[in-house]
Amino acid sequence: MEGKKTPLNVVKVGGAVVEDPRSLDSLLQQFAALSGRKVLVHGGGRRATDIARRLGIESVMVGGRRVTDPEMLKVVTMVYGGLINKDVVAKLQARGVNAIGLTGADMDVIRSHRRPTTRMVLEDGMERDVDFGFVGDVDRADAQALDALIGKGMTPVVAPLTHDGEGNMLNTNADTIASTVACALAPLYDVTLTFCFEKRGVLENPDCDDSVIKRIDKTLYSQLKASHIVAGGMIPKLDNAFQALDRGVGRVVITSAGNVDGSMGTTICP
Amino acid sequence: MEGKKTPLNVVKVGGAVVEDPRSLDSLLQQFAALSGRKVLVHGGGRRATDIARRLGIESVMVGGRRVTDPEMLKVVTMVYGGLINKDVVAKLQARGVNAIGLTGADMDVIRSHRRPTTRMVLEDGMERDVDFGFVGDVDRADAQALDALIGKGMTPVVAPLTHDGEGNMLNTNADTIASTVACALAPLYDVTLTFCFEKRGVLENPDCDDSVIKRIDKTLYSQLKASHIVAGGMIPKLDNAFQALDRGVGRVVITSAGNVDGSMGTTICP
Repeated sequence: MEGKKTPLNVVKVGGAVVEDPRSLDSLLQQFAALSGRKVLVHGGGRRATDIARRLGIESVMVGGRRVTDPEMLKVVTMVYGGLINKDVVAKLQARGVNAIGLTGADMDVIRSHRRPTTRMVLEDGMERDVDFGFVGDVDRADAQALDALIGKGMTPVVAPLTHDGEGNMLNTNADTIASTVACALAPLYDVTLTFCFEKRGVLENPDCDDSVIKRIDKTLYSQLKASHIVAGGMIPKLDNAFQALDRGVGRVVITSAGNVDGSMGTTICP
Repeated sequence: MEGKKTPLNVVKVGGAVVEDPRSLDSLLQQFAALSGRKVLVHGGGRRATDIARRLGIESVMVGGRRVTDPEMLKVVTMVYGGLINKDVVAKLQARGVNAIGLTGADMDVIRSHRRPTTRMVLEDGMERDVDFGFVGDVDRADAQALDALIGKGMTPVVAPLTHDGEGNMLNTNADTIASTVACALAPLYDVTLTFCFEKRGVLENPDCDDSVIKRIDKTLYSQLKASHIVAGGMIPKLDNAFQALDRGVGRVVITSAGNVDGSMGTTICP
């Protein structure tokens, strides 16, 4: 019989939740109440756009993703790694959670490489080479370094930033950071990965917030895709979720920021 | 005979050094070359002023110190905790130093309280009550938390920010952070505290950069003050240095950013 692993929650919250003081407070209250070992991963997209605008730096989006030139890299490093991360850390400390803010560069926790120029079909239907600038595609996370903190009762709060090992910070998708951390820790812990977003879960009827599908496995997922109940932006989310399960994560929950404990969302299971 | 303690360097560099890419690179090269355990504390004043100005936020200084209203607190949190701290961390990682960026809030490493309204004689000679806003006066540093990182071969990179334990970040003088960290670690290590600033050390003749006084003890300090060779802003620096020695720091070095190893500066000793 295999030894039972210690449970660990990896919770990802999007920028919209983190930017609104009331929803952030509610989220942090719930997160603080989660028992046991845990990691928080936060986004922060809109706040960066706002600060960039005020600094006179234009936000360029291609295919829904931010192009990160050297000036925009400074903005996201400030906003994600400083403003949002330290606000969350200070507020968790006030709630008795021994939080420690991290980017991928700190302790070399998440190493990535700059995304190469990518051939993409754009909104106008034309195919073009797109250079996303200082955007990182993750190479590896250091579970031992993370566990050195977690094992001492600390709660890492991870910003969506990594580094290339050559002195450059890289802007990195927060969902990817959350999956990477969850998968890295899966050999050491029984990991639950929870994605908090603006809906209560995966909905059977997109117009009805109460139509949350409680549980999705691979078979149901195929059916939901075939019947177009699951479509659009939910497909990459669920693909990522199943990938995390394949890499050892115990379960993935998709829910709202009001349900950090995952009690009311959609559980994705193998 | 007392057991010999492991040496540890606490190096403080001011904002001017950190803001200039060439002087920062040179500093980090020297800091990376320092053998043994070490901590870097950085300032960042002028960069915050610049970003604040671009965001349309006025920098108010009273008696040479920044007033930190809620908007300015956001700016210093972004700039010190994000932009500068992560740039330094990523560049140290590239030089093989396993750096981890910290503010006082991370791991609850440095707790402070908001400075109460202070009665001050201002530039116009009038006495007034001054509220510096979200400025922190340090209460304590957690040597065990810092040593949990240092003992594992990590190098803390500390931003001039603390927290009040009630969810607020506080803007805190970088020299104070450096002294606080050095004094906290003094019971565990043989600590050298090095302040890097724009001169080569304490000068016998302020117009001659080569007139560095090699070594100052309390007796010489009294003489230097009496003869007005040491005056102005150097007095609080040296007072702080002697205070750190009284609290167990082995030696304090005042030198330029070009001499992180302290070989060419002024050594302050009991």
